[in-house]
Order: sequence, then C-alpha cells, then structure tokens
Amino acid sequence: MTSTQIGDVDTQALTDEVIRSFDGTPDTRTQTILTALVHHLHAFVRDIEPSLAEWESAIEFLTAVGQKCDPVRQEFVLLSDVLGVSMLVETINDQHAPGATDSTVLGPFHMTESPTRHLGDTIDEVGNPNHLLVTGTVRNTNGDLLPHATVDVWQCNEEGFYDVQQPDIQPAGNGRGLFTTDELGRFWFRTVTPSHYPIPTDGPVGTLLDATHRHPYRPAHIHFIAHADQHRPLTTHIFVPGSPYLDSDAVFAVKGSLIGDLGTADAGHAAQFGVGVGSPIATVDLVLAPTPSGSADVL
Amino acid sequence: MTSTQIGDVDTQALTDEVIRSFDGTPDTRTQTILTALVHHLHAFVRDIEPSLAEWESAIEFLTAVGQKCDPVRQEFVLLSDVLGVSMLVETINDQHAPGATDSTVLGPFHMTESPTRHLGDTIDEVGNPNHLLVTGTVRNTNGDLLPHATVDVWQCNEEGFYDVQQPDIQPAGNGRGLFTTDELGRFWFRTVTPSHYPIPTDGPVGTLLDATHRHPYRPAHIHFIAHADQHRPLTTHIFVPGSPYLDSDAVFAVKGSLIGDLGTADAGHAAQFGVGVGSPIATVDLVLAPTPSGSADVL
Repeated sequence: MTSTQIGDVDTQALTDEVIRSFDGTPDTRTQTILTALVHHLHAFVRDIEPSLAEWESAIEFLTAVGQKCDPVRQEFVLLSDVLGVSMLVETINDQHAPGATDSTVLGPFHMTESPTRHLGDTIDEVGNPNHLLVTGTVRNTNGDLLPHATVDVWQCNEEGFYDVQQPDIQPAGNGRGLFTTDELGRFWFRTVTPSHYPIPTDGPVGTLLDATHRHPYRPAHIHFIAHADQHRPLTTHIFVPGSPYLDSDAVFAVKGSLIGDLGTADAGHAAQFGVGVGSPIATVDLVLAPTPSGSADVL
Repeated sequence: MTSTQIGDVDTQALTDEVIRSFDGTPDTRTQTILTALVHHLHAFVRDIEPSLAEWESAIEFLTAVGQKCDPVRQEFVLLSDVLGVSMLVETINDQHAPGATDSTVLGPFHMTESPTRHLGDTIDEVGNPNHLLVTGTVRNTNGDLLPHATVDVWQCNEEGFYDVQQPDIQPAGNGRGLFTTDELGRFWFRTVTPSHYPIPTDGPVGTLLDATHRHPYRPAHIHFIAHADQHRPLTTHIFVPGSPYLDSDAVFAVKGSLIGDLGTADAGHAAQFGVGVGSPIATVDLVLAPTPSGSADVL
C-alpha cells in the first residue's frame, strides 16, 4: 500500500458505515451477530488485501460449495469441518456442561432419520458376518442412570462409506439406529466395526485440501446423539482405538477422552447378550448434564 | 460461559492446530490467506459463541446463497456487496492509484459481454425516445489523453432493470456497449437516463435486508470499465446527480467524487454530436494511473 494511514482511515469509515446500517435491526441477537461478522470479515480483508482476481476466486469458491450441496451432500458443513469451525462451535457449547461426556462434531452424514430399532438389534442390514457388540449406559453427571433415553447411532461400513454414499449397495438406514435405554439406562446393539475413511473430495472442499497438501481422512468412529428429558442432548463420536489418523483427523474432532474401550466377551457377556466368548465388545458410557432448572436452554 | 479461562485456552489450541494443518501448503499466498481466514473466522465464532442451532442456520443461509446463483444471478456477489466487502476490496485496490478517478464496485450485472459499438451509437436497443448524450475522455494522471482506450459501459433502463433481468422485454446487450476512444482520447454515446433500483430481493440476501430493516435501493448510475495499454484498468460508476438513495446506497458504493456532471447541450454540442440544443448531456472524465514501469501488476 502506498498510503497506509489514509487507507486505514478510509476503510474503517466504510466498516463503521456498514455496521451502522444494522441500527434498525429489530432482533438484538441478529444485530450482534451481523455487527461481529462485519467487524471480523472486514478485518480479514484488510489483513490480506486481496486483489480483485482473488476476491473473484473467493466468490467462485463459495458459489461452488453451495452448488455442490444436495439432499445427501452438505459441502458447507464439510468446509466448516475442515476449517475447524464445527469443532470450535461444539467446544464452545460443550463448555456449558462440565463433567459430561465430551461432545464432538455432528458431521455431514446425519441427514436421514435413523430407523427405530430394539435393544440387541444389529444396525447392519447387509448381512455382514463380522459383528461387534456395542454395550453402554446413559447416565447424568449426578451418577443417575437414565431409563427411556434415546440413543441415535450412525456409522460407515467396513469400507468407510455411509448408506447415503452407496445407495446401490446399502439400503437406506444401514449403519443407523435409534435405540431407547431400558429401565437401568442401558443400551446394546450389534454392528460392524467402522473403517477410517476420507471425507468426500470430489467437490470444492477436496480442491482446498489438495491445494494445502492435507489428507482427507478421518479415524474410524461411531456417532452418537443421546437425548433424555431434563438433560442437555449430547452429540459425540466414540473412536476405534488404534485407528489410523487419530492424530490427524481431517475435521479436528478427536478428543482423547472419546477414544473407545474395546474388549472381548467373557462368559457373563455371552450369557447376557448371546454373543460368543472372545468376540469383540465396545463399552460406551454417555454422561449427560442436567438442564439447569428454570433455564430455557436453546440446545 | 462457565469456564472462560479454560475455554479460551482450549479453543485457541484448536485454532493453532487448524492453522498448523496448512504448514505443507506449497503456495505461500494461499497459506497466508487461509491462515488469516482461520484466525479471523475463529475469532468471530469465539466472539458470538453461536448455539448449534445458530450455526446450522448459518450453514443453511450460505447454502441458499450458493444455490440461488445461476448464469445470470450472482447471490454471493450481492452478499459481498450488502456487507460492504466488495466496496472494501475496491477501496483497498484503489489506494494504489492516487490521482486517478475513484473506483467503485463491479456489481453483479457485468456477466455478459457488452456489444462492440461505434462512437455516437445509442446503447438503447428498445427505441426509447428520451436520449441522454454521454460524452467524455479517458486520460491518465500525467494529463495525457489516451486514444484507443476501451470503455465498457452498462446500465439499467428507465424502470431500473438490466437486460439480463428482463430477457422478454430487453434484447441481450441492451444498455451495454464497448467503445474505443478516438485519436483525442474522446468517447461519446447515447442512452436513456438510468433509474435508481432495488437489488434483487427474492433470494437470501433479500431475507437478510428484510431482517435488518434495510432498504434494497441503489441510486441511479452508469457503470464504466476503462482499459488502456500500460495503465491500470478502472472499474467505476458515474451516479446521476439528485438521484434518491445517494446517501444510503444498499451496497455502500457512492463516493462524492463519482456524482456526475449533468448539463444541457449548447450550439457547439449540437453541431458536434448532432443533438438538439437544450437536450441533456452528461460529461464523464475517466483518469487512469499508469502501470508502474517494470512491475507485473496482477490487476
């Protein structure tokens, strides 16, 4: 820049003018968000001083992201994921629930309703012979077990694909299940062990990863959303211990506390769940925070 | 937040991790831009602490903006315009050309090629009887007149619509023209006086303006892009003096220096341009900055 001082004054006046344009916004929260957006977005532009060609490239990139979206593909969620924004939002919201199981990102594949299933069912509809038993409880931070809690589960198959990515091979709902805990707050189901997998790279987010020499892989995991009356919902993953990419998740969603507990069935498990002694068992405990009494929590 | 200090440490570590993920980016400029983007975007998110529902609304809004785009509609440019980002980028780039005519935003309607026309032609193909003569020069900051410069012109009609918005009423190219200056650096053409107009409000940007009680209007103007060898291109508007909304342009693009000079033809004009004495004339002088010798200016 040849005239930094004058330039700074000029562009700050423009920023102030844009922020003033929101003065008539009826909703206070909307005004707060837009004011912060303009403040930070203009600071970013001042920081990098884009050429007009760079600005046009940014417009084209964002347009391509929007146009890649369809009922089974959410490219803006992917973009938010690979920029760490989804994880940041999760972490900020999670800070309100100390003592509860850590949350992590929703991810882009929770776009269809999980079929309601019974405790002990398999979520594998393809007939894969290699079953993993997942058994767990839903509790709260006071130690109370939570009966009648819902546990929404979804995961990819052993090749790393979700049902919506392979409609010709996987029936809709494969790898998904909506369970309800029993009187003791317990749930259990059978599934295949999910694989690590690449996030979809055939869109603009793939181009971004390629331009930055970042790999697109996520470590293997099962998604959970647990809901119980008078408790804050929990959205999280349980990661498969030993999976590749636990230390370089493309979407920054790994927390050490979320790496799962994988063991093998003993005679007690065999009797209780009807599995073979020595077969694999994952144990998952989901701990929810009670909703503060009297608060109207928007989550 | 119940744990501000711990939270700040946690989320800054995440931001640092995302920025480190760009360490392998081969192109330095790309790395600089993405690093600044993550820095400012995460600061924005930390500032407003969005709920998950608010984050989902933001994803839906951006997706809708992308999906509203088509070959004759650029909703992301509109969004950039109403947030003052387009004008900020223009202002930053304009600072490199002191003494030249002020630039202003390109706008979303420069999406088709202007038909090549001869000096003196009308750009109105509809046959409107109310013609305005626009006459001007292209010069540089040293005072040299610039022959063989190109002047790309586009504008809306007297009802405030560009050709691409009314394909049934306006032939493609109506209100557009690509002219070349004569040996004395002069150009002149005939047109209708453009109207003030609303930017398109039937998409997500219209929803945003509505939510903030902002009006969608732009004051009346004619767009110009001037190109001359060894000079920096100039993208600007000339605003119609006295137009409504000169003090509240929906896209923040008005600069006082760009409000035009509107007069009436005298006997000299009548002889030179073949117009009636007393008919309206707008006089436009476009001043370009020479490209610094030896520099490879990307613009």
